[in-house]
Amino acid sequence: MNPILRLLPARDWLANYQRGDLPGDVVAGLVVAIMLVPQGMAYALLAGLPAQVGLYASVLPLLAYALFGSSRTLAVGPVAIISLMVAAAAGEIAAPGSAAYLSAALLLALLSGLMLLVMGLARLGFIVNFMSHPVISGFTSAAALVIGFSQLKHLLGISLPQTHQFLDVIVAVFGQLASINPVTLVIGLGSIGLLLSAGRLARFVADPGSQAGQVLGRSGPLFAVVLFTGLVAAFGLDRSHAVAIIGEIPAGLPEFAWPGLDRGMVVQLLTSAALIALVGFLESVSVAKALASKRREIVDADRELVGLGAANIAAALTGGYPVTGGFSRSVVNFTAGANTQLAAMVTAVLVAIALLALTPLFFFLPKAVLAGIIVVAVARLVDVAPLRNAWRYNKADAAALLVTFLAVLSWGVEVGILTGIGSSLLLLLWRASRPHVAIVGRVGDSEHFRNVKRHQVRTCPQVAAVRIDESLHFANARVLEETLLGLAANSKELEHIVLICSAVNLIDSSGLETLYKLREELQDAGITLHLAEVKGPVEDRLQRTDFLEVLKPGRVFLSTDEAMRALDCV
Amino acid sequence: MNPILRLLPARDWLANYQRGDLPGDVVAGLVVAIMLVPQGMAYALLAGLPAQVGLYASVLPLLAYALFGSSRTLAVGPVAIISLMVAAAAGEIAAPGSAAYLSAALLLALLSGLMLLVMGLARLGFIVNFMSHPVISGFTSAAALVIGFSQLKHLLGISLPQTHQFLDVIVAVFGQLASINPVTLVIGLGSIGLLLSAGRLARFVADPGSQAGQVLGRSGPLFAVVLFTGLVAAFGLDRSHAVAIIGEIPAGLPEFAWPGLDRGMVVQLLTSAALIALVGFLESVSVAKALASKRREIVDADRELVGLGAANIAAALTGGYPVTGGFSRSVVNFTAGANTQLAAMVTAVLVAIALLALTPLFFFLPKAVLAGIIVVAVARLVDVAPLRNAWRYNKADAAALLVTFLAVLSWGVEVGILTGIGSSLLLLLWRASRPHVAIVGRVGDSEHFRNVKRHQVRTCPQVAAVRIDESLHFANARVLEETLLGLAANSKELEHIVLICSAVNLIDSSGLETLYKLREELQDAGITLHLAEVKGPVEDRLQRTDFLEVLKPGRVFLSTDEAMRALDCV
Repeated sequence: MNPILRLLPARDWLANYQRGDLPGDVVAGLVVAIMLVPQGMAYALLAGLPAQVGLYASVLPLLAYALFGSSRTLAVGPVAIISLMVAAAAGEIAAPGSAAYLSAALLLALLSGLMLLVMGLARLGFIVNFMSHPVISGFTSAAALVIGFSQLKHLLGISLPQTHQFLDVIVAVFGQLASINPVTLVIGLGSIGLLLSAGRLARFVADPGSQAGQVLGRSGPLFAVVLFTGLVAAFGLDRSHAVAIIGEIPAGLPEFAWPGLDRGMVVQLLTSAALIALVGFLESVSVAKALASKRREIVDADRELVGLGAANIAAALTGGYPVTGGFSRSVVNFTAGANTQLAAMVTAVLVAIALLALTPLFFFLPKAVLAGIIVVAVARLVDVAPLRNAWRYNKADAAALLVTFLAVLSWGVEVGILTGIGSSLLLLLWRASRPHVAIVGRVGDSEHFRNVKRHQVRTCPQVAAVRIDESLHFANARVLEETLLGLAANSKELEHIVLICSAVNLIDSSGLETLYKLREELQDAGITLHLAEVKGPVEDRLQRTDFLEVLKPGRVFLSTDEAMRALDCV
Repeated sequence: MNPILRLLPARDWLANYQRGDLPGDVVAGLVVAIMLVPQGMAYALLAGLPAQVGLYASVLPLLAYALFGSSRTLAVGPVAIISLMVAAAAGEIAAPGSAAYLSAALLLALLSGLMLLVMGLARLGFIVNFMSHPVISGFTSAAALVIGFSQLKHLLGISLPQTHQFLDVIVAVFGQLASINPVTLVIGLGSIGLLLSAGRLARFVADPGSQAGQVLGRSGPLFAVVLFTGLVAAFGLDRSHAVAIIGEIPAGLPEFAWPGLDRGMVVQLLTSAALIALVGFLESVSVAKALASKRREIVDADRELVGLGAANIAAALTGGYPVTGGFSRSVVNFTAGANTQLAAMVTAVLVAIALLALTPLFFFLPKAVLAGIIVVAVARLVDVAPLRNAWRYNKADAAALLVTFLAVLSWGVEVGILTGIGSSLLLLLWRASRPHVAIVGRVGDSEHFRNVKRHQVRTCPQVAAVRIDESLHFANARVLEETLLGLAANSKELEHIVLICSAVNLIDSSGLETLYKLREELQDAGITLHLAEVKGPVEDRLQRTDFLEVLKPGRVFLSTDEAMRALDCV
């Protein structure tokens, strides 16, 4: 194999490309491009950036991911929630439309790209487990609401204050009901209607299973764009009825440029970049996994980090803004028949052609159409089912979901996601600090020992056999200590405690230290600590220390039965 | 019982006080007071505060803890590490000696007290599990080094820049070697020598087991104070040799006053107050537990939070600064015979008497003596053993220790502790995201199934039996998904996966959602998911959802053997 090729994670599909994969890749690439051109412009506006930035972010980043990513069908590019996060972060630095705002967006792409890359190379993919699913649901639903309402100004043709806080937007909308632009409203609602019914309309023309049907079924945004741009241009609605339009988009491909590295701005944007990297990776990796499994392929989280990192750095170098693998476009890519990342390359080439040749056609494109595209895209993200399910299933999870949801609506997307991370970690810590610990007794005359709370078992006053059903680490060691000391405090007859380690796969340094301390504390209380059923690897590690020496006269028994017999509890 | 008494956690010992406990309590109270008066002044200076603030923090806080805390022998008051943290936090707000600096110290006591109280009432004691033992060791050793070196200026009689960064102090000391004050150095080293040999000297005079021996053995600081204060006063060393002395300490008890609540200052100090609360609680609760267990008593972490919260609020109301249960004084209190918190009340009364009557005697007290007391107190905190042990036992823990240690030395105590919390959480997440998952096979013709990697077992190509040895929650659900999808991707013959849940005590919402997704993804790959050995409480929860319906044709088997027989893998 070519030595350069060997460095690329994409070598699998590049080296083994089958001619039979080509038709699927080309059609899928075309379908995604048809969706991506209007969506890219729409999401750029959502991020407070010029429309072309969304297109710039849809060329080189796609090629970079194709070469470095691990998913074969992920469709990378601008997405709604990341665009909202960019608007929130860059909005702290400068006013939308200013040069500093654009620099901030580029810098966010560079920083989050570097972070993703470093995390991938350091194999830190596990960090994404920071967020529980309910928290991600709460965050997504709330962010989608914020995005949807932020588009009201374009759909209604009114002007709203620059804010990403939900309540402020609602209040402002009610204050401006009188100044709604009816023509704009018709265009916006018309676009939404067209988008929602595109699938059904396409079925009249072509079999939805056929390639033509695939292309047509996903062309709703394109139809809306063509139809309403044509109407505005033909009747001069932008002048006669003040319909807001995109205006001039500079033609041509983006130029390579290293983003300016202002140290103060870097420091200001670090947290936001980290959050963008995290959210982008979460969205991307979950869709990539879902799609890969349908074909019995696997997605490597660490390689995904590298691929997304490369895509974002590519975005930063070519005038784009942060990108990730989008849910809906990836699903479309997959169902339209994409076999490899060649589909994404086709998409990138088509977007590049649009940039070179089609930008004059977008002059009269009404902003209300792009707003409609955004609203339809985010509407499916607002979902009450996870809350209902969590509430029925696990109240703590439901509470974390609600807290995150409300935090996004009240304090914006950044505080919201930090709240989500915080509540996830709190839940993890809470659960980790409540290990399942059972006092067990002998079942009849057998050699079996079961939880005294659930079974009819026999125990002795001088011995307590305690089973901890988890590994012993710093978050739960304290609780084990408290439980055993509690036993010691509650029974004056107690002389031995046997700690059954059948479920202990690891004892970390804190757990070991707790065992040392516990042994001493129990000895002070006149109680001997013993271990039983210690697993091989765990005992090997203990042998590296002097714990088993210090434990004496406490012993390590092979089985609980052996321990209880030795301690005269038959 | 008196209804007011009933509200106090201390009602146990208050209501059942035995006359026989009195002598031990009085002697221990006296011994601790003898240590506490010089230590309180020394730690106040370490915190950058006037000496009397340390004494104010040693009266009412002790009474508050005695009434609300749960440990009978904990000795509350100023401690070295908390004093360092106060200096770091207040130093960000104002210059030491200014009124704003004093206000900041009071506010830190109030805020951390309120935080402790609220956490205790909300039963959030589990939050202290944020920090692993190696991280606490690294933090403590580094903080002790910083404290020790910060006292060099008093021991050498030189002036150093206000900094809490280790390297800056060392560099500054070398720059000033020429201006060392030899008389101050002799006093400082003399104090240290006296403190280190006090125990041995006392043995010549009285039996160390006797009450007189106990008092004498702990009187080293008092001797040093009396001896060197006398020498300085007698020979006028403060004027003739520029020996730095404490100077005038206002006589009288502290006055009640509500600390000024400047909103900006509150916001600035919130993080510091939270860290002070956390570190104080960690130090306190570990010593309280160690002492309680020696008498088969137990310490309730949530009640400890309330007790320490009350003590800190009391400190804030009476001109003090943050306090906690100190390690060495608590051990002294215990070994000197304290039976109940009456000992602490005796200590408080004696410190109050010192404030009323003895302050003129401290005028000529050399600062070098107090520095010596601090150095001796913190020297025992610097310990290489935890690093050596962790290195031998668990490299990841050793790395977390080292990172925390270096962060404290490089960036100061606050960044250091945040680094420690961060690395602890990262370790927790890392471990939680690596559940032990084993593929199992049948042992001979038995009904037992064991790990294929460790035992000679029989398997079938169409069925994989997978045992997860932990509860299924958001931090590890992703890994389970990856493992099972990996199995699916690697074997084209696979038709069934049996997930053995014998070790699963909980499936949280994320785990449940992963199971839904996994079932669907496996179905897409032509594989049926089954469950086996699901515990009763876990199955009850699953019954509340439609998962067991959706799982079909997948089944829930009582045993792995039953599952394997049903799937033709005998």
